[in-house]
Amino acid sequence: MTSDLTTQIIDKINNKTKPRGALGELEELAARLCQIQRTLTPSLVKPAVLVFAADHGLAREAVSAYPREVTAQMALNVLAGGAGINVFCRQHDIAVVLVDAGVDWPGDQPAGLVDHSMGPGTASSLRGDAMTADQVAACLSAGAAVVDNQVDPDCTIVGFGELGIGNTAASSLLVSALTGLALADCVGPGTGLAGAGLARKLAILTEVQAAHRRPDGAEEALRMFGGFEIAQMCGAMLRAHASGRILMIDGFVASAALLAARAIDPAVLDSAVFCHQSGEPGHARVLDLLGAKPLIRLGMRLGEGSGCAVAYPIIASAAAFVNQMASFADAGVSTGEPEAAG
Amino acid sequence: MTSDLTTQIIDKINNKTKPRGALGELEELAARLCQIQRTLTPSLVKPAVLVFAADHGLAREAVSAYPREVTAQMALNVLAGGAGINVFCRQHDIAVVLVDAGVDWPGDQPAGLVDHSMGPGTASSLRGDAMTADQVAACLSAGAAVVDNQVDPDCTIVGFGELGIGNTAASSLLVSALTGLALADCVGPGTGLAGAGLARKLAILTEVQAAHRRPDGAEEALRMFGGFEIAQMCGAMLRAHASGRILMIDGFVASAALLAARAIDPAVLDSAVFCHQSGEPGHARVLDLLGAKPLIRLGMRLGEGSGCAVAYPIIASAAAFVNQMASFADAGVSTGEPEAAG
Repeated sequence: MTSDLTTQIIDKINNKTKPRGALGELEELAARLCQIQRTLTPSLVKPAVLVFAADHGLAREAVSAYPREVTAQMALNVLAGGAGINVFCRQHDIAVVLVDAGVDWPGDQPAGLVDHSMGPGTASSLRGDAMTADQVAACLSAGAAVVDNQVDPDCTIVGFGELGIGNTAASSLLVSALTGLALADCVGPGTGLAGAGLARKLAILTEVQAAHRRPDGAEEALRMFGGFEIAQMCGAMLRAHASGRILMIDGFVASAALLAARAIDPAVLDSAVFCHQSGEPGHARVLDLLGAKPLIRLGMRLGEGSGCAVAYPIIASAAAFVNQMASFADAGVSTGEPEAAG
Repeated sequence: MTSDLTTQIIDKINNKTKPRGALGELEELAARLCQIQRTLTPSLVKPAVLVFAADHGLAREAVSAYPREVTAQMALNVLAGGAGINVFCRQHDIAVVLVDAGVDWPGDQPAGLVDHSMGPGTASSLRGDAMTADQVAACLSAGAAVVDNQVDPDCTIVGFGELGIGNTAASSLLVSALTGLALADCVGPGTGLAGAGLARKLAILTEVQAAHRRPDGAEEALRMFGGFEIAQMCGAMLRAHASGRILMIDGFVASAALLAARAIDPAVLDSAVFCHQSGEPGHARVLDLLGAKPLIRLGMRLGEGSGCAVAYPIIASAAAFVNQMASFADAGVSTGEPEAAG
């Protein structure tokens, strides 16, 4: 990024027919889109949300309000077009790509998804590592391959979603390991635990954490705690960044994947747009730590990349005003005499 | 509203393929849309944003960062399609209707707007009433006429915007009068005052307030403080509510109009969706007082109805999930066993 371009971006935004700063966070977002694309005319083309689905060995340990088979059921729901992510992506003409990163299917794997299955779910991190080092490496490659092969070459913006009963549990362990936040600050209700269920989840995750040494780096953390979908999402984020795309970051699980990606390549954060602050309490802490301001805070905790899809039109609004709004000179509007602060 | 319908709405939302409550505020919003339309299948048809423009006598008293002629210039910018509201409404196929409620044009009134001009701006509330009682009544009727005659009969959702240098000053006076909030809590930078300019604005408005008795009701408050565009917006809100439409409420000035409308018909609040929490500090206080949770908080302070247009797709997302998302039964997904809280 040249400082020339940065200056030009600021000038362009400040010369739009509005009081300086009057579009608030849309202005910062617009500047970010320009910076990512190294342009004064950002464009959102062929948006896609990649939904990575996988099962978790840890889900056998009562860390979720829903039974483990819901992962497969919800993956079928996405394939049938009936899930929340389908509805919101249809609304905004966003492509949905469902990736089987390792779902435990009750029967045959269905058609219509991208097959990067690493097997029927991870092992339980309570009883050893969730995955092998080879599986971690394969997941990172598989995620990159999804971006290379399943996303339109013209696509400029990619969101990341997930399905996986037990994956807020794995994410809590990852976030604690990758940030140093206390586990209790990273554990929340997930799909809907409360009271005794939530206390049990924290107790089990504390036991998991105690059963492992503190991991050294993202790959080891992913190996210890999983999951397949989080590791593949991490690989996809790194490739989407490397290919110059805008990354739409959803909730807690996607933020865990982003923390892993950041540990591998800190520059990935430069491409990230934080879409939604989840209802999962650990997410606010991760966002704070990253200095990130999410675009919306609607208390959603659905996963699937739903926060990306719902926030997408706001990103499009930021691009639209930079590209289409008249400047003071265009419109013959007086620029006013801003007061000095003091 | 029958309690039967209320129960059916809650059941329909709870049976969507998601953990209960997992769409957060989108669920409350969806229920609200259903309640307003008395239906289980809410529909957003032919959305429109009505932008009321007018000048303020008080703007001659240095209460704004921008000169008074900017109202006319920005109205021309809206007519030419170059303003923020045009960009955001084009993005979402929302009609923009510009109403001249009383702009002080430097020359002839331009073509292409709806003419409900009450004259070249209100009188200064520092030197008497901003408008006459007849003008208040005419404004309320004119606003209603805009809804009756300028909005598509099939339109189910209307947003309200404004243009008017000096109108956050008038709104501060209205909000203080209609809520009892201290004037200092209702005064903010508007288009960009800071420091000495902001202190001067508060001093002038304190003088205005002291020059009037506390108004008895919305009509008297509008008569004392103006403005033409706020009074017409108030009339339009009342008619949009009476005709069963969803009302999109933008920022501080629109909220002042809504407070006036509420004083005339408290039921107008039942039709309101609060779109955006403005950067104007008094707006947060008004929202608190109304128990309102705005959909987005992007720190915008542009006016024009821009917050409505930027938030509109979120309202559409709420309608879309209720109408299109699969139920647990449709999709064969297990419903889980929610834990008892405690």
